[in-house]
Amino acid sequence: MKNEAITSRDVDFAKWYTDVVTAARLCCYSNVKGCVVFEPAGYAIWEKMQSILDKMFKDTGHQNVYMPMLIPESLMKKEAELIDGFAPEVAWVTRGGDKELDERLCVRPTSETLFSDYFSNVVKSYRDLPLKYNQWCSVMRWEKTTRPFLRSREFLWQEGHTVHATQKEAEEEARKMLNVYKSFFEDYLAIPVITGRKTEKEKFAGAEYSLTVEALMYNGVALQSGTSHYFGQKFSKAYDISFVNSENKQEYAYQTSWGCTTRMIGALIMVHSDDFGLVLPPKIAPKQVVIVPIGNVSSKVNQVYEALKNANISVYIDDTNKSPGYKFKEAEVNGIPIRIEIGERDLKNNVYTIARRDTQDKMQVDAEVDIVSYVNSLMEEIQTNLYNRAKERRDKMTYEVDNVADMKKIIDNNPGFIIADWCGNADCEVSLKDINGLKSRCILENEAPVHNCVVCGKEAKHRVVWGIQY
Amino acid sequence: MKNEAITSRDVDFAKWYTDVVTAARLCCYSNVKGCVVFEPAGYAIWEKMQSILDKMFKDTGHQNVYMPMLIPESLMKKEAELIDGFAPEVAWVTRGGDKELDERLCVRPTSETLFSDYFSNVVKSYRDLPLKYNQWCSVMRWEKTTRPFLRSREFLWQEGHTVHATQKEAEEEARKMLNVYKSFFEDYLAIPVITGRKTEKEKFAGAEYSLTVEALMYNGVALQSGTSHYFGQKFSKAYDISFVNSENKQEYAYQTSWGCTTRMIGALIMVHSDDFGLVLPPKIAPKQVVIVPIGNVSSKVNQVYEALKNANISVYIDDTNKSPGYKFKEAEVNGIPIRIEIGERDLKNNVYTIARRDTQDKMQVDAEVDIVSYVNSLMEEIQTNLYNRAKERRDKMTYEVDNVADMKKIIDNNPGFIIADWCGNADCEVSLKDINGLKSRCILENEAPVHNCVVCGKEAKHRVVWGIQY
Repeated sequence: MKNEAITSRDVDFAKWYTDVVTAARLCCYSNVKGCVVFEPAGYAIWEKMQSILDKMFKDTGHQNVYMPMLIPESLMKKEAELIDGFAPEVAWVTRGGDKELDERLCVRPTSETLFSDYFSNVVKSYRDLPLKYNQWCSVMRWEKTTRPFLRSREFLWQEGHTVHATQKEAEEEARKMLNVYKSFFEDYLAIPVITGRKTEKEKFAGAEYSLTVEALMYNGVALQSGTSHYFGQKFSKAYDISFVNSENKQEYAYQTSWGCTTRMIGALIMVHSDDFGLVLPPKIAPKQVVIVPIGNVSSKVNQVYEALKNANISVYIDDTNKSPGYKFKEAEVNGIPIRIEIGERDLKNNVYTIARRDTQDKMQVDAEVDIVSYVNSLMEEIQTNLYNRAKERRDKMTYEVDNVADMKKIIDNNPGFIIADWCGNADCEVSLKDINGLKSRCILENEAPVHNCVVCGKEAKHRVVWGIQY
Repeated sequence: MKNEAITSRDVDFAKWYTDVVTAARLCCYSNVKGCVVFEPAGYAIWEKMQSILDKMFKDTGHQNVYMPMLIPESLMKKEAELIDGFAPEVAWVTRGGDKELDERLCVRPTSETLFSDYFSNVVKSYRDLPLKYNQWCSVMRWEKTTRPFLRSREFLWQEGHTVHATQKEAEEEARKMLNVYKSFFEDYLAIPVITGRKTEKEKFAGAEYSLTVEALMYNGVALQSGTSHYFGQKFSKAYDISFVNSENKQEYAYQTSWGCTTRMIGALIMVHSDDFGLVLPPKIAPKQVVIVPIGNVSSKVNQVYEALKNANISVYIDDTNKSPGYKFKEAEVNGIPIRIEIGERDLKNNVYTIARRDTQDKMQVDAEVDIVSYVNSLMEEIQTNLYNRAKERRDKMTYEVDNVADMKKIIDNNPGFIIADWCGNADCEVSLKDINGLKSRCILENEAPVHNCVVCGKEAKHRVVWGIQY
């Protein structure tokens, strides 16, 4: 029985997405154009993501800091590529109180400039290095078209910024953080990802190179889900971050930055959810279990609730005065991984019912079951099933081609990831945009090309994953 | 042996404060005028504050959300008192990308307007109430003079916003959150506070009344440290937050808001720290214990470290190649509550040394001591001692007077909290500003006046705490 409030995802994917977001009350539009309100259910997912990632960052030796949200234009301009990349999409503060400012300030779109300015003040010697910092904050990019979680003028993110004494160490850091993102996606969000290097055209403004985590949505559209940049000495030269190295020589430092955003909530929805509403992997679900009492069953309900709660499982009792059917539907819409229905009649037969959100299967269990181990192993099963389901779909939607006609056919009919070899020439890359905006997602660094360039037919340098993107 | 990098607090308190902040590397000025960089040691204190307060808020039924950081001028203007209060000190965004905006947007100085706008969309019936939300974010106020943590253009804070069906419930909420702040200050920050109601002149723009938590710094200057506002129906009428009540009648909702900020870090410093640097109560210290190895003692050091770590005590080993004396000094400057010195020579006599930061006492302990219970009970002792020391000083610097001449004498010589009765007339209140900016801190709601008004000599209505403020 489909939820009438939710458009079928196979009928109108964009409408389905908005319906799922709205039905679960994750976020809503505000009277501030292009900005959303993160409602409690949506913000709770972000808090859970933050707590897991923050621990991963700290375990890899990073510390949190906080930089100002406004950046003077002159400071922003010191690194030419960065300002060129961001100038068209920043918001400018030009007045403070009742005075026109001498210099306008932009609301941070990203904070390389501020971190670099700070680093130039505190880094003197190789003994001060490395500095490995991270910041949780919101950033602002003046986008024209917006979509909840995927693209909005303001969004929440983390941005890591590190300085190192050697190129080798900085490059290792960029790779390490790419792998942190990969683990987070696969182990917690249950989303399989492809990792690789961005082409020159698609890399971050100001980076030597950018590494990326790419995921595929249910409708075959790609989502860039986290990036890690190696800057070399570009910013350290622009902002004068120099230090005395171990051989007592002055040298410019090596930097990285890496970030992921609230668009990961959009990825969760577009990979796992269905026509009944939100589906969340248990490891990221703010609420993992709901207990629905039917009739006079409070003693059993409390017993199950206390047992789960004491085992650190996030559980709540839906004791509102709605009908059981309504409560089941609500739990589905909200993506609660496990629903326990405890009914008066069933309890007489010494059983109750457990429903899992991913498959919507219902199981009758013995009322004396060890509920903690039952729920824990069911959560693991759901987590694994969601990952496998997403991976199977992603693999089925990943195509290898050696000619543009086939690329076009795939994108027109059944889009997905397309693997095709490329000569490295930007003209060839750009020409593919004619196919519904097809772009390179990333270069597969550990794979050698087996064909010639899919566009020009000349010798290929790289295996590349292509796709249409959000 | 005083730290030469730190000015004595009895010689130049303002300089001492900056020296302590700088020496502990809590924050520093940036190239963004009036904004600071929160460095790792300073931000870690804020994270600890956040984690404790966030739990207190959730335990009292609040949920976190996130509203946009920009507010359209028209939305801001709906509540007249609020815009009058904040207009002189907001930053305005007037350009997005390369276009002039049709309507300018202010960077939030506080978010009553956005929350009210949101509430007006989602509140329909008394069944939707109460809504009890909180937001962690940064806000911007275009201050002219700034001081690290105490006053800066951008600062970090939390702002709670709630909507209720009845006046009684909303007023109870405002009081409850005032008490949460009071507990947080006294039980965690070890800072005794006075709570009370702000006068009409000093209340928050747009509030029916404001409740406040007031602390006294070492130099006798008062610091407003947290506020909780009852709005009645002021915002609900301006933003149309109406609902059908349980008697099926349309009614305007009742609201509160409450907040505390990173200035609490300033309070911690100015209440507890000394001429040797930062002093932190163990319950708020990000790092509670440092172990300093002297000589070849790694097996004992690791044993102590593991024991403390496994007991969830935040401990680190200072194994840099600096001299022990330098390390001791550094631990003092950084406010580490407990220092454990494990030396080769001492171990031969089966002892080692423990130093507490608050009193700087050193104790020799048996090397076989149960270190976890020793440290836990020492931390409790330090926490209690810091609170008692602060309370004793505060009490000694709290004066009761019945004439303006005495007020002036106190403020000129040895400032502190002054309790004096007041008729309730704003002219009397304002006239006291001539005494070095003396202002009312709060009305003591449970105490009746015993004298006439300290200024005009007419019948007094309130006992009031007065003080000079940051």
